[in-house]
Amino acid sequence: MARYPKDAGPIVSKVPEGDNRARLVCEACGFIHYHNPKVVVGAVCGYEGKILLCRRAIEPRTGFWTIPAGYLELNETSLEGAAREALEEAKAEIEVEALLAVYNIPRIGQLQLIYRARLENARIGPGPESLETRLFDWREIPWDELAFPSTRWALEHFRELEGVALFQPRTNPRGETGDFAPGR
Amino acid sequence: MARYPKDAGPIVSKVPEGDNRARLVCEACGFIHYHNPKVVVGAVCGYEGKILLCRRAIEPRTGFWTIPAGYLELNETSLEGAAREALEEAKAEIEVEALLAVYNIPRIGQLQLIYRARLENARIGPGPESLETRLFDWREIPWDELAFPSTRWALEHFRELEGVALFQPRTNPRGETGDFAPGR
Repeated sequence: MARYPKDAGPIVSKVPEGDNRARLVCEACGFIHYHNPKVVVGAVCGYEGKILLCRRAIEPRTGFWTIPAGYLELNETSLEGAAREALEEAKAEIEVEALLAVYNIPRIGQLQLIYRARLENARIGPGPESLETRLFDWREIPWDELAFPSTRWALEHFRELEGVALFQPRTNPRGETGDFAPGR
Repeated sequence: MARYPKDAGPIVSKVPEGDNRARLVCEACGFIHYHNPKVVVGAVCGYEGKILLCRRAIEPRTGFWTIPAGYLELNETSLEGAAREALEEAKAEIEVEALLAVYNIPRIGQLQLIYRARLENARIGPGPESLETRLFDWREIPWDELAFPSTRWALEHFRELEGVALFQPRTNPRGETGDFAPGR
């Protein structure tokens, strides 16, 4: 039986009154710990035909390339969050143009809102969570060194929808759950 | 200084190492309690020119009308969540057609994904969280008895986009934060 945090009452998995599924409940105080999905916000950022990528300085997937993205914080909108992540990870100022995709990675309880954006200017540079930032031509993209399956999805959807103004946001490619497959 | 849960170590607000904003941290065990935004999934469901609404049996806003919507659970996709809520709250089987809107209500840390859907058939009925379910003609919608500002936004965006196949999801109406204004 897990104790959480240490010295607290025992935590058991049970269905709270009025609920319809098991939650983690503290038997000492009745506190219900809801695990909710987390929201990731990010953007594929274009500039003069190139795409901004950041090489990760943090786990998971240190050293691999990704688009600027991260957890939505309380008290910010998803647009504000996507712009904040671009600024934090790549010192990039962006203008968001459209909602490119909504990806679900249910195994890890993640919902991703990925926007299509353009850089306001070419001034980019690594923030504390990046080793390196770079603008890539499409043919230069390091496909074998991308951080996550959803990084590839977002890049491919960005490419598919270049020049398309009105579209529904893309979703996970058919049959893909976003689970990381090493060596893929 | 709050104790959480009872008998655990003192909980203080501090910036964890490597982070850039204050979190609730247990001084006894170092556990970091992240408060993250929660995801609401729902659908405006049409059927032969009418729209499905549910009268709420639970707080907040008991007795007021809303579209089927609720918190996204772990281990389900946003589409699955929207369909589950329609089934739970209105015993309705739906087919989701498009992502109608993404609303942000940052004051309460809520991100809403609202889909456009159609009922598979006219079989609806109140689930445990509804007092009543009903199909409304547009002119019958009880505007003064809607549960939330975002209920009205979703209905108006659904109406605006009837017959439109390709569109970007709508967002909060300009200047509206979703804070509830009683008596409005």
